Amino acid sequence: MIDQEMDFTIERLGDCRFPSPMGLGRFTGDGERILYHCRLDEIRPYLEAGAAPPQLELAGPREKLFFDPATISAGIVTCGGLCPGINDVIRAVVLSLHHHYGVGKVYGFRYGYEGLVKRLGHPPQLLTPEGVEHISALGGTILASSRGPQEPAEMVDCLEELGIAVLFAIGGDGTLKGARAIAQEAARRGKALSVIGIPKTIDNDISFIQTTFGFETAVAEAQRAIYAAHTEAVGARNGVGLVKLMGRDSGFIAAFSTLVESQVNFCLVPEVPFSMASLLTNLEKRLALRGHAVIAVAEGAGQELMTASGGHDASGNVKLGDIGVFLRDAIKEHFSQRKQELNLKYIDPSYMIRSHPANPHDSALCLLLGQNAVHAAMAGRTNMVVGFWNHQFTHVPITLATRQRKKIDPEGVLWGSVLAATGQPRMMY
Amino acid sequence: MIDQEMDFTIERLGDCRFPSPMGLGRFTGDGERILYHCRLDEIRPYLEAGAAPPQLELAGPREKLFFDPATISAGIVTCGGLCPGINDVIRAVVLSLHHHYGVGKVYGFRYGYEGLVKRLGHPPQLLTPEGVEHISALGGTILASSRGPQEPAEMVDCLEELGIAVLFAIGGDGTLKGARAIAQEAARRGKALSVIGIPKTIDNDISFIQTTFGFETAVAEAQRAIYAAHTEAVGARNGVGLVKLMGRDSGFIAAFSTLVESQVNFCLVPEVPFSMASLLTNLEKRLALRGHAVIAVAEGAGQELMTASGGHDASGNVKLGDIGVFLRDAIKEHFSQRKQELNLKYIDPSYMIRSHPANPHDSALCLLLGQNAVHAAMAGRTNMVVGFWNHQFTHVPITLATRQRKKIDPEGVLWGSVLAATGQPRMMY
Amino acid sequence: MIDQEMDFTIERLGDCRFPSPMGLGRFTGDGERILYHCRLDEIRPYLEAGAAPPQLELAGPREKLFFDPATISAGIVTCGGLCPGINDVIRAVVLSLHHHYGVGKVYGFRYGYEGLVKRLGHPPQLLTPEGVEHISALGGTILASSRGPQEPAEMVDCLEELGIAVLFAIGGDGTLKGARAIAQEAARRGKALSVIGIPKTIDNDISFIQTTFGFETAVAEAQRAIYAAHTEAVGARNGVGLVKLMGRDSGFIAAFSTLVESQVNFCLVPEVPFSMASLLTNLEKRLALRGHAVIAVAEGAGQELMTASGGHDASGNVKLGDIGVFLRDAIKEHFSQRKQELNLKYIDPSYMIRSHPANPHDSALCLLLGQNAVHAAMAGRTNMVVGFWNHQFTHVPITLATRQRKKIDPEGVLWGSVLAATGQPRMMY
Amino acid sequence: MIDQEMDFTIERLGDCRFPSPMGLGRFTGDGERILYHCRLDEIRPYLEAGAAPPQLELAGPREKLFFDPATISAGIVTCGGLCPGINDVIRAVVLSLHHHYGVGKVYGFRYGYEGLVKRLGHPPQLLTPEGVEHISALGGTILASSRGPQEPAEMVDCLEELGIAVLFAIGGDGTLKGARAIAQEAARRGKALSVIGIPKTIDNDISFIQTTFGFETAVAEAQRAIYAAHTEAVGARNGVGLVKLMGRDSGFIAAFSTLVESQVNFCLVPEVPFSMASLLTNLEKRLALRGHAVIAVAEGAGQELMTASGGHDASGNVKLGDIGVFLRDAIKEHFSQRKQELNLKYIDPSYMIRSHPANPHDSALCLLLGQNAVHAAMAGRTNMVVGFWNHQFTHVPITLATRQRKKIDPEGVLWGSVLAATGQPRMMY
Repeated sequence: MIDQEMDFTIERLGDCRFPSPMGLGRFTGDGERILYHCRLDEIRPYLEAGAAPPQLELAGPREKLFFDPATISAGIVTCGGLCPGINDVIRAVVLSLHHHYGVGKVYGFRYGYEGLVKRLGHPPQLLTPEGVEHISALGGTILASSRGPQEPAEMVDCLEELGIAVLFAIGGDGTLKGARAIAQEAARRGKALSVIGIPKTIDNDISFIQTTFGFETAVAEAQRAIYAAHTEAVGARNGVGLVKLMGRDSGFIAAFSTLVESQVNFCLVPEVPFSMASLLTNLEKRLALRGHAVIAVAEGAGQELMTASGGHDASGNVKLGDIGVFLRDAIKEHFSQRKQELNLKYIDPSYMIRSHPANPHDSALCLLLGQNAVHAAMAGRTNMVVGFWNHQFTHVPITLATRQRKKIDPEGVLWGSVLAATGQPRMMY
Repeated sequence: MIDQEMDFTIERLGDCRFPSPMGLGRFTGDGERILYHCRLDEIRPYLEAGAAPPQLELAGPREKLFFDPATISAGIVTCGGLCPGINDVIRAVVLSLHHHYGVGKVYGFRYGYEGLVKRLGHPPQLLTPEGVEHISALGGTILASSRGPQEPAEMVDCLEELGIAVLFAIGGDGTLKGARAIAQEAARRGKALSVIGIPKTIDNDISFIQTTFGFETAVAEAQRAIYAAHTEAVGARNGVGLVKLMGRDSGFIAAFSTLVESQVNFCLVPEVPFSMASLLTNLEKRLALRGHAVIAVAEGAGQELMTASGGHDASGNVKLGDIGVFLRDAIKEHFSQRKQELNLKYIDPSYMIRSHPANPHDSALCLLLGQNAVHAAMAGRTNMVVGFWNHQFTHVPITLATRQRKKIDPEGVLWGSVLAATGQPRMMY
Repeated sequence: MIDQEMDFTIERLGDCRFPSPMGLGRFTGDGERILYHCRLDEIRPYLEAGAAPPQLELAGPREKLFFDPATISAGIVTCGGLCPGINDVIRAVVLSLHHHYGVGKVYGFRYGYEGLVKRLGHPPQLLTPEGVEHISALGGTILASSRGPQEPAEMVDCLEELGIAVLFAIGGDGTLKGARAIAQEAARRGKALSVIGIPKTIDNDISFIQTTFGFETAVAEAQRAIYAAHTEAVGARNGVGLVKLMGRDSGFIAAFSTLVESQVNFCLVPEVPFSMASLLTNLEKRLALRGHAVIAVAEGAGQELMTASGGHDASGNVKLGDIGVFLRDAIKEHFSQRKQELNLKYIDPSYMIRSHPANPHDSALCLLLGQNAVHAAMAGRTNMVVGFWNHQFTHVPITLATRQRKKIDPEGVLWGSVLAATGQPRMMY
Repeated sequence: MIDQEMDFTIERLGDCRFPSPMGLGRFTGDGERILYHCRLDEIRPYLEAGAAPPQLELAGPREKLFFDPATISAGIVTCGGLCPGINDVIRAVVLSLHHHYGVGKVYGFRYGYEGLVKRLGHPPQLLTPEGVEHISALGGTILASSRGPQEPAEMVDCLEELGIAVLFAIGGDGTLKGARAIAQEAARRGKALSVIGIPKTIDNDISFIQTTFGFETAVAEAQRAIYAAHTEAVGARNGVGLVKLMGRDSGFIAAFSTLVESQVNFCLVPEVPFSMASLLTNLEKRLALRGHAVIAVAEGAGQELMTASGGHDASGNVKLGDIGVFLRDAIKEHFSQRKQELNLKYIDPSYMIRSHPANPHDSALCLLLGQNAVHAAMAGRTNMVVGFWNHQFTHVPITLATRQRKKIDPEGVLWGSVLAATGQPRMMY
């Protein structure tokens, strides 16, 4: 098995080869990699120092398999909040295991990692090609989900009992760390278990991955909320449409949905601090000039403006203050004090976005993520996630993927485009 | 002019006839009416008493016109909250005035009735066929809106100054009463002014009208929220999806969106009272049985459960307590006290529904409403709204249309279908 | 049993009552009817002659049942071409049989009436509430379909073998006649079999029924094709967008989709003949005036312009000439001969319309149709279809429903509105 | 001015700097480039030979401008067939010229390059921020289009007469070659004219550009047709759904829409030849096994199977044989000869795809393409297109972009994924 992180070796179980009689195009060679950097001046220092520049292993079907597909079972688990495309990934994994490799049994664990803990009493369900045929049409996850970790030993017990040799974990940061813990526990026991993560983060904030599944759908649905906010705003004197969007640490959804039709006048993200005084002054100017305004705020923006509530949720995330409600009330109060008319409409579309079925783009992305996750597992990779970089699917060690969140660079092209689209000041301080 | 309510006569201005060279099918005769009732036993008593049973005048183009289209100008005003299809109605009125009658100038008043009050400084905008060609694609109202009445005398002054002989008012209860006040003021002055209402109520709660524009679109968009609530609910243990929908006095949106795919387990409407104790007991049963539940609540439901906030909004509507937030908190508190897990997701899609462009059904309905409003105006009708009854367009006096709201009959077929679809108890007491 | 057509009596099997513990609102009384006519002068002659005017029996749950639900099985069959909403009806029937009445087994027959003929070897599939839960999201029919009749005796043999006492047939004219033949064969055998039709005709051309399921969805999807035709037409000099829509005998889809946004300039339907010479002349005028034009033609329009191909399809329908291709070629030839530039784009969206899932309106309509079909069956009605009239669900004898097709009245309000929306001449001769 | 192809120098007109008071993020430096290759072993040979590996210049706002925005006018022209997003690009260009640079007059030329030829009599229309505000909601092009080249000298005369210093050409291969001819004619005259192409190809077949605008929308709409084909196919015995999609030389739309939900069983593209015999054999096998099949064929596939019609269209493209109709007829004939039942439904959704408004992804992409085109023009770039590579916007010389079409590699990852999704044989020979 190949775990790019752990010093861990298990002899190859057999001498299996890719079983499909017709092939799926060419096989990916084990040495194939793509560069992490895209500029010559980023790469040159490594070369001049005689070192290899950072690269990511390419995903894809391998000619030699680690596992004999006919002898193993597989498992799938979905954790954390909803995100468009989870069912597409489940479907792709089940179909690929079945049609490409002939794996007999695929178990779906219920309610996240809880489903891998036998004493909690959620028996796994068998997933068949027929059973998953139409699930792409459904939002959410047919396996249901939960938050929070479980004891790795208990989970590996469960996997061993069911004869599961490959486990696919669809989830975010916490889920991936849980997957790593499972992989480590299996390694400790000397058990050949392949644990492959398919990163789920509607915020698109995973390092070393350019686009995560569900993000495009989320932007499209976020845009519907912005459209509504804009329509309400222009329909009344001093109309203000305020939309709170997902984005705990990274404001990609707010930024990209601002770039769609450019109806947003103020885009507020966690990466770019702002003061209420400046926001209110700029809002007043905008209303005086045009009579209406639209504000898109990521949920993690402006946290420093509110009194910290403290605490963490079950997934271990810091509990955020509700910046949407805070802004709504602060803006209303401000205009009320000045006795200026204000027609503010506040929209929080989060659950309608999260529960939406994947759009065609994400549906295709999920298909390929699922297939590549299966290829990786069957080739004996473990403790990794399937990534996407420079339009190619890659293998990324979990530790690398979870080291730090990908964020908007306030000096970069994306944020510059947002400023160009909104006309908002570069910094609101 | 014909005002079915006021005893009011103006000599015919000329002897105009429908100007279109090609005709629009046959003309509607002045005596054409349809029955209000649809059952023989409802009609028979009238006939046996020698009386005419209640009937509604049919809308449609009249051969003889009251106004000479070449000599008059027209005005359009939109009031109150947004509703899908307002722009379609504006467009239909402008196109019909222009293409069918050759009226030269059509003014759009800005910001509701405020736009008819000169001293408030919102100059009207000229509406041309080219200018309105693509507005159906937009939600909201291109004229913008406001709430609340204005002084009839000031508004009639404005209309007289602009030479407006026909005014179209798109709005709800308060707007229609304002339209009547304008018609009455004009009559008092002996001015030939036709005031035609196109009833806008997303709640579909106007008596003598089976379906108002925007309602189908609202149900379709409400269903998206219910779908999201359902998806979130099944995705977690003891998942509860709670959706607050429009419906101040009448729960038609909640009821009809419950009938779409029947994903709702508890539909709560203003017409059918419920107790929190019973709702909670039934919710517990449902969760014990199925592990998830969806609740759709109309904004006017369960008002008696909350402490009255008192007061009215600018449109004169009683300020409602927020039943959505109330239920959310009460349910959370209940399960928290019992130390039972609960994953409640609350969705309030109101502005996303209100600001949505009309779907094709409503777009066609708006076209026909607008055309029939123009036909009515040109034939000299006033102080009336265009209605829809038994698949036909009708003329309804404003007083009749605003006398009392249409409501769900808790003993009737619709509510029975809701009970059949949800499986909820008939009364939750 | 009650067959309004046949003189047919079977003693009540038991003394069953509606089993649901909670009720579904009030029960429909056996004498409840609504008037077919909506104008007083249509009804008065009957009354003056001492006769009852034509009425339709109201649908709904009956207090007394004919069948004991605990002892019977049910069957569903879908025939003919696809139409949005078939799966919604299947789902509603299965859920109502199960949840409202407790019927144990519901069989779905495969491939239309072929599935009821044992020797053809399509075993029926058992339909459970779980199995149909998500099928509303799918277009088409999960049971698949076929065209053409089968031998009634063979089909009743099959029903008897499976112990089926109530059969639901979802299909058009031919299907309903087949359903009647089954009902008659059962009556001949003295077997208590309830056969209930749910009329499926995307053309909305069934008499005594105001709107059939799938029609609204079809209009909405047809409008997409018209939008495309319009967009292509305005994008080129002398651009002509030509769309062929469904409508064998009745042009309702073409007419209603013309009323959505009024982008159509020529709407051609079977009910209103036209000459090529006149169409071409008017098209030339339109292009000279505006530079582009959109034509919507129903498939049954202008059949007299083409040489008859003769023959019938498996459903017994006359094979139509392809008016879309005929018009496309004739218009191209005409402008080519005159050496005038023409950019004609031809769109035939039929299968994309037919295979679309039901929109929310139709989804709710299908739910209620299915529920009322089950109520009718359990109350012992047979040889009838569930209809919709004046916003109420009704029972219509199959003979009445299939006597003649509902058509657009060229002198009526609908066609007048189409003329008003297109500006096309009243008759193109 | 900087033309990476021509040896062409004009002195800088002034010493202008970016005029926006607030900035749009950081400026792009003139030396910033990204690597064309993404693998180390592709780059190393260049470095070892002491040469620079191929790189693409980064797009973005430049600090120093070539033109003084206050003194120039701009023009936009759209050519060739429709593609989702053209209006978004027009809008983005107009808004950026106006808001970011303060260019006073922007002319939209009507009917493609014809609009630049004065004697053809299509006066240009002035494009204002207000006029383009809502055009993203519309499919097609508000400027209309035409095919084929015009005389460069006449077009440059027109540009000179209107004082246009920057011209944006939205179109495909032929359009870009026309743009180069204009740039060359201007250079010949010594006129400082910046000609910037925004590549429009729904087929996504432009080299050096990873994704062109409209492609995602096209795949999404293509998927609707595939969904319809699939639904029709499963709804009948031996049902075959056949969909013809765009793709003259490159089958990207067919390939990617095959990856959405994987409902396609045979994906046929120009890059991978097939024999009818093999296709029919495999189709028979599939039908015997599953009873239904879906075929997606790109319009340029299988051209060698048909007798060449010869000729070219006005854009200079070879006239293709109609592979959709050819396959439809050949498959029907084959099964008819074998007296096997076949229910084939043929769908050609091309115009409905081409005329669709951009989806949110493409809408944002178009915004950024338009902004970067304006940045490039104002900085004095010419004879280039705006590209997209490794998630960054780039400048690509027209000659490079039009040298050869981007195609699917039959040995590559994409085609492998298609084979994995369809299960079709690698080669059908």
